[in-house]
Amino acid sequence: MTTDRVRISYSPSGREVRVPSGVTVFDAASWHGIAIDSTCGGHGTCKKCKVRITAGDVDVSTSDPRAFTPEELANGWRLACLAKAERDIEVDVPPLQTRPKAATVGVGRQVILRPAVQKRYVELTEPTLADQQSDLERLLAAVDDLELTVDLLAVRNLPKSLRDNDFKVTAVVVDDRLVDVEPGDTSGTRYGIAFDLGTTTVVATLLDLSTGTPAAVASMLNAQQPFGADVITRISATMLDPEALGRLTERAHETLATLTGEVCAEAGVDPLTVYEVSLAGNATMTQLALGIEPEPLGVAPFVTATRSLPRVLASDLGVPVHPGAPAYTFPALGAYVGGDIVAGMLASGMDRDKRVRLFIDVGTNCEIVLGDGQRLLATAAPAGPAFEGAAIRCGMRATDGAVEVVKISPDDVRLQVIGDAPPAGLCGSGLVDAVAALVDVGLLDTSGRLLSVDKARETLPGLADRLSEVDGERVFVLHWHGEPGDAANAVYLSQRDVRELQFAKAAIATGWRLLVAELGVAESDIQQVLLAGSFGSYLSPANAVRIGLVPKIPVLRIVSAGNVAGEGAKMTLLSVRERAGARTLLAEVRYVELSDRPDFNDRFIEQLAFPG
Amino acid sequence: MTTDRVRISYSPSGREVRVPSGVTVFDAASWHGIAIDSTCGGHGTCKKCKVRITAGDVDVSTSDPRAFTPEELANGWRLACLAKAERDIEVDVPPLQTRPKAATVGVGRQVILRPAVQKRYVELTEPTLADQQSDLERLLAAVDDLELTVDLLAVRNLPKSLRDNDFKVTAVVVDDRLVDVEPGDTSGTRYGIAFDLGTTTVVATLLDLSTGTPAAVASMLNAQQPFGADVITRISATMLDPEALGRLTERAHETLATLTGEVCAEAGVDPLTVYEVSLAGNATMTQLALGIEPEPLGVAPFVTATRSLPRVLASDLGVPVHPGAPAYTFPALGAYVGGDIVAGMLASGMDRDKRVRLFIDVGTNCEIVLGDGQRLLATAAPAGPAFEGAAIRCGMRATDGAVEVVKISPDDVRLQVIGDAPPAGLCGSGLVDAVAALVDVGLLDTSGRLLSVDKARETLPGLADRLSEVDGERVFVLHWHGEPGDAANAVYLSQRDVRELQFAKAAIATGWRLLVAELGVAESDIQQVLLAGSFGSYLSPANAVRIGLVPKIPVLRIVSAGNVAGEGAKMTLLSVRERAGARTLLAEVRYVELSDRPDFNDRFIEQLAFPG
Repeated sequence: MTTDRVRISYSPSGREVRVPSGVTVFDAASWHGIAIDSTCGGHGTCKKCKVRITAGDVDVSTSDPRAFTPEELANGWRLACLAKAERDIEVDVPPLQTRPKAATVGVGRQVILRPAVQKRYVELTEPTLADQQSDLERLLAAVDDLELTVDLLAVRNLPKSLRDNDFKVTAVVVDDRLVDVEPGDTSGTRYGIAFDLGTTTVVATLLDLSTGTPAAVASMLNAQQPFGADVITRISATMLDPEALGRLTERAHETLATLTGEVCAEAGVDPLTVYEVSLAGNATMTQLALGIEPEPLGVAPFVTATRSLPRVLASDLGVPVHPGAPAYTFPALGAYVGGDIVAGMLASGMDRDKRVRLFIDVGTNCEIVLGDGQRLLATAAPAGPAFEGAAIRCGMRATDGAVEVVKISPDDVRLQVIGDAPPAGLCGSGLVDAVAALVDVGLLDTSGRLLSVDKARETLPGLADRLSEVDGERVFVLHWHGEPGDAANAVYLSQRDVRELQFAKAAIATGWRLLVAELGVAESDIQQVLLAGSFGSYLSPANAVRIGLVPKIPVLRIVSAGNVAGEGAKMTLLSVRERAGARTLLAEVRYVELSDRPDFNDRFIEQLAFPG
Repeated sequence: MTTDRVRISYSPSGREVRVPSGVTVFDAASWHGIAIDSTCGGHGTCKKCKVRITAGDVDVSTSDPRAFTPEELANGWRLACLAKAERDIEVDVPPLQTRPKAATVGVGRQVILRPAVQKRYVELTEPTLADQQSDLERLLAAVDDLELTVDLLAVRNLPKSLRDNDFKVTAVVVDDRLVDVEPGDTSGTRYGIAFDLGTTTVVATLLDLSTGTPAAVASMLNAQQPFGADVITRISATMLDPEALGRLTERAHETLATLTGEVCAEAGVDPLTVYEVSLAGNATMTQLALGIEPEPLGVAPFVTATRSLPRVLASDLGVPVHPGAPAYTFPALGAYVGGDIVAGMLASGMDRDKRVRLFIDVGTNCEIVLGDGQRLLATAAPAGPAFEGAAIRCGMRATDGAVEVVKISPDDVRLQVIGDAPPAGLCGSGLVDAVAALVDVGLLDTSGRLLSVDKARETLPGLADRLSEVDGERVFVLHWHGEPGDAANAVYLSQRDVRELQFAKAAIATGWRLLVAELGVAESDIQQVLLAGSFGSYLSPANAVRIGLVPKIPVLRIVSAGNVAGEGAKMTLLSVRERAGARTLLAEVRYVELSDRPDFNDRFIEQLAFPG
């Protein structure tokens, strides 16, 4: 579904961008952080976004001829917000009259502020017997550059707001909806909350929409945890108990409401001045939060209820802010590449960077995206819970006491533990470190088998004492709790743990290798690997390469992208153009299903071994 | 604001209609009960509404050229639903292939059924790993002749509805919204409820939208009564007590909910199969029901919150039907010509009848409309509560015991009483009868003064004994409760009562006389007087003429139009075209404000006397 792309060169900045054909000159500039004057926000009414097409051609009919003289039109002048780029063009942008506000979010993305939430302060003339125009018509006439749909709530508050303040009021507009009318001038106050609704952790960021700056951030565990750690157990819960869906929805609402209270309290912001929220979550989290039956997501053929959700309100998510506040929810590509990944792609500019880049969000379900700025491929790999410390004998979450860094030399084992605590178990990054280090020193062979004690005494006498057996299984002890020797009570890595990790990394490596093949590039062509999510922040790039989890490229090119889903959620609150970007992304990215590929098993088995 | 009108002649029916320029050939036919084939309901997709323009011209660009060969286009063939009449034309309508369903509602109006509520039964192919289309996309692809906005509720129910019934489901569509998806084929079941929300009485009609027939009707007193009998006292209540608005809204909801329960129970209909409601009420009743501050309606300069209400749901009116059901609310022309009158105009075809017709809805606030099928004028006259029996010494509502008919000869007084009860008081129609009869026999002079007892003994000895005084005021006794002589305890008409009636009828007569002058016609040009509402049903046309309440035209031309507001509400449930009609009406009718006219007082004083 890759659409045609065209090249736009902007002068005097010298920037050149490639965008889908039909995108306006204004949007293309905005997406790439190039500022063009505008006060109406690209609705074709302010006529300030005049640019000159200096090469190539933009049809006069796609601009507003009344904004220009015939000579200007003939010389290539167009309104950037109406001029659609349908072939390669060069555009001359006049110097800015006003300085656009922008914020840096995502992976170094510069977003020009254009929130859906707008406020307009207006002073109306009061009605008389000779002028009995209705309150609403009077207000709408004063903001007639906007074509508004009106919420009942706004009409409810209108008569009193007008008369409490001598017909001087502020219209609160979100997208094309009039959601409220407030007495007096409140135009300086407008907030939004961006939610990253993770299966494990939920993060809320309160944003001042006038400046683009975060006013407060809070996070907590998803209150759905008691129903299961991952999406599959939560989906199963709804299949076993008809009341579970309702309860899971309640728990999601409870989580979002708690965070809302926290960020508003911390920043001293009235929740009624929060006029919009955005939410990035995987398909299951999003459907559960909205009370949509998740069962078809969990069983073959893995189908979402809908890729793009209908218009919903913050109140549909149980978020106690302004009652008319809408909730922007990210669209999903499919059951296993959800809104969180679309948000992540947006935040990391997967569709706008000309380099060949690989995006990996490691988790029980691992999402992988490969793109070259022109084509985008995505897939989901069933990695299992090994990286989250589950199914690992001494595994645990990345909390206090978890071993997160492991370094092993022929004589010594050194551990780094989260928090001020003795080692209690092994989290995902510690697991990768341990396995990579054991392969490096030679205690694990490339097929993933631990050496026998006898063999170890021969070749690695300094570590051989750490080899033991627990329940008949060979283990390598990382930390003795008391005196050496009591392996069953130590923190160790077992032979089966290594196998779990091998399965997980093989699933992921098979995924990206298939995408590399589909895109027709070589592994060495990959110029950047983005590791998304919190696990990505802790993982050692060198060890990720060592075990074959990521392509073998210079470690400096393997970067932790951070909480990109949350960043994507913030971007859509700050700019409606980024939402258009998310829609375009969805139309451009092609999903590659792994589970029905005949070559999957062969490739998977090849990937089980560690690189030699 | 009268818009240009054009004439369309339809053959072979020979019908000729005048409609606002720009109306489609299909709509114009539909509004006048002329049937043209269509299965898509005029969306330009079924291509069944082919007609031939035989004179005049309809631009090819306003039709769909792909539906015809170039020869057919050259010969004048067009799709009626797309062809806009912008000048006088003649249209040849081919014989019908299907028989359209129609219902007779309003004042003899034939409405071709085209409810906003549609159901579509579809059988979908089940998803596979090779076809992972989302549930919603799969459904929408099967009804792609409709461009639908989707409600969250429909998405919530979608996965289960599809899988409970082998992907055979019924889509419930209201206007352009997908409001639900039901398992199996439920396409035969769709209901709506039309509400006439009166200040005094509220009526609900449950309609089977497949056949257009009423399934049940119920009525009750508006539960807002304890807050006052008329709109002004209820508005005042909200001004005195900040909590009154909320309570009035609750009472309205309670009333509508009770009636909903009654009509559904009576017809054995599941309220969840009621997918739309409509509501006709005056501006105050409508605003109160929706929780909109009514104060500006009650004080000069008398301003509505809005002429056209935003999209609201039945649940916003407290009506417990399908949770996604919208509520159609009639737009208002102004504070005192509300949605009930717009509904009444629609039901009585005020905009489609070429005769000069006068529409009067008598009440505390009396609404008057005069039209000739081309121009429409409306006004509101402050008649006061006399016709409702208030401010009349022995006045009462038209309930059991109320004298509703009075006949007086020189020797005798005969009364007709409501219910099986002795006379207890005088309702509006009885008041008009009594005054008219007294003028006729000569006991009241044309200035409205009761004869003195002495004078009466001379000229009307048979009635003179009924003349008496109560509290120093001259009265005419209609009924002695016991022995004649105890006037204070009798049912009587007082001199001041006559004055009250004179003020009321003068206000109304001044109103319609001003409209007659504005329209540039003579009183004798009026070909029909429509008396709306329940009062109109009881009023004697001859006596209405006798006291000068209505123009002096043959009594057979003075007709009771019945509950036209309720009929209008029914029509809009049965046909979306009638809603378009209501919108057109609103744009065409011109409101004439009486209170700031310099000639009002002179004319009012002229009208106080009874015709000689």
